[in-house]
Amino acid sequence: MASYRERPAVLRSIGRLMSTIAVLALVSTASLAQEASTMSSVLEASSASDWRPLQQDLALYMTLDHGTVVIELAPEFAPMHVANIRTLVHEHYFDGLSIIRSQDNYVAQWGDPNGDTEFMRDHGSAAVQLEAEFYRDRSGIEFVRIQSQDAYADEVGFVNGFPVGRDDERAWLVHCYGMLGVGRGNEEDSGSGAELYVVTGHAPRHLDRNVTLAGRVVHGIEHLSSLPRGTGPLGFYEEESQYVPIRRIRLGSDLAEDEQLQLELLQTNTATFEQLVDARRYRREAWFADPTGRIGLCNVPLPVRLRQ
Amino acid sequence: MASYRERPAVLRSIGRLMSTIAVLALVSTASLAQEASTMSSVLEASSASDWRPLQQDLALYMTLDHGTVVIELAPEFAPMHVANIRTLVHEHYFDGLSIIRSQDNYVAQWGDPNGDTEFMRDHGSAAVQLEAEFYRDRSGIEFVRIQSQDAYADEVGFVNGFPVGRDDERAWLVHCYGMLGVGRGNEEDSGSGAELYVVTGHAPRHLDRNVTLAGRVVHGIEHLSSLPRGTGPLGFYEEESQYVPIRRIRLGSDLAEDEQLQLELLQTNTATFEQLVDARRYRREAWFADPTGRIGLCNVPLPVRLRQ
Repeated sequence: MASYRERPAVLRSIGRLMSTIAVLALVSTASLAQEASTMSSVLEASSASDWRPLQQDLALYMTLDHGTVVIELAPEFAPMHVANIRTLVHEHYFDGLSIIRSQDNYVAQWGDPNGDTEFMRDHGSAAVQLEAEFYRDRSGIEFVRIQSQDAYADEVGFVNGFPVGRDDERAWLVHCYGMLGVGRGNEEDSGSGAELYVVTGHAPRHLDRNVTLAGRVVHGIEHLSSLPRGTGPLGFYEEESQYVPIRRIRLGSDLAEDEQLQLELLQTNTATFEQLVDARRYRREAWFADPTGRIGLCNVPLPVRLRQ
Repeated sequence: MASYRERPAVLRSIGRLMSTIAVLALVSTASLAQEASTMSSVLEASSASDWRPLQQDLALYMTLDHGTVVIELAPEFAPMHVANIRTLVHEHYFDGLSIIRSQDNYVAQWGDPNGDTEFMRDHGSAAVQLEAEFYRDRSGIEFVRIQSQDAYADEVGFVNGFPVGRDDERAWLVHCYGMLGVGRGNEEDSGSGAELYVVTGHAPRHLDRNVTLAGRVVHGIEHLSSLPRGTGPLGFYEEESQYVPIRRIRLGSDLAEDEQLQLELLQTNTATFEQLVDARRYRREAWFADPTGRIGLCNVPLPVRLRQ
């Protein structure tokens, strides 16, 4: 673990998802591609075409009192749920609801606490239940495999910036840190997207193919992950006074441009991303005694930056 | 993801490390061992000999204003560091220092912010630097292997309640959620235990064999994991006013008995633990659509309860 005594050295190795925006502001544009690669040098040498803009009509902006969380939806894996969530958000379904659960090393979850009663909030034009979208056919998507022994899937990799598992027939989004999931009851088709959670702990991969995943946090996850933990069963807040109010959730495309965050995401089907995975597999920073030579799916950073 | 609509059903499947104490209070002592096993039924059917008491002379009690964190040390893997940390704590080295770093999805870290200056706090009888204890010989310890494809180690399992990786020659503690590590600079022998961190995010396994791990949190990790994130590089707090004061750290054996927490830990070399791993590999709770059939090392819960 990097010591504060060595900030300059370890700064070169920084690579946490949400820190990337800050880091990129620190590096120059001079190419370091010829040197032994680190994540910083790989990103520094990236070209504009390695990045794609966050698509605002697939972006959710969740406004909490202490900050804004931005989530990118994944229509390739959960088209019905993404459409339903977009409808709910467009019609302001979540405004004034709350985060009602924060379970340590697991999830933060929000929705209507009266969702199972006659007092449930009206879903407007949105469906109240949807067929599960736990996985899809493995064909028809561009899968970038990474070499890794994975505890839960035959093969792992990325599709358009999302972590994915595969077997011979199916492909599915996996529960890495920051992924957005659709709460459901015991019936597989009992979810709708009106109750959502974000993974805030070690990847709970046993939920893969048991829940519809619909996106991932691309900005501000610390506003969810640092919430006080609920003390009720499963980390639910026991008192309404502990609920964390959601002032509003909006689609980026429903916001004025100056309210949008112009984010860019590193494309995972590029040579630059391949180099980045290699740089994280073989740690060449001075601090490392053992360069490791291996990497896990949920340990691969997915860089996000402000538009250059 | 379990819905709040289904609390009773999902309550049976609860298994997060820190929730176990609460859960165990809810189950009766009637044996359910004949039924298809879930974690709850396995724990319910456990016998007193499946548990061991927390050894108070290997327990650190960290008192923060918002709660107490209890850490169990691992002398089998880091004997020199454990001895040095025990000396530092016995001589009250940490009292009045602070948590100075909280990096999202990574670590919370504490120590002397002047540790690299002439104003560094006196280490008393403790060493200021120690030889690294990144790994040990694989012989001489009782290793309980679990079948799992692991991204970072040839074999994985548990030794006396701690998650461990192995190759043909070596064994080492691995960076699962809640593990305690020893901060160091670029030199491998630059750590002493005066600067410590706890993993509060997805297992940063690239740190395995690069850092001396010395223990794990067995109670109260939420007091570390829910801290506000630092906004400086690597999650360091930028202002001293943001530091989180450590009122004191004590060895359990230096506390009066009524100040100790009488915890019991499920022994990992028991048939009960083997059944628990099986129950987490094959999820038989009604909520699961796909029982998974696989498990990752850092997804295995390590139950802790109050003395029965």
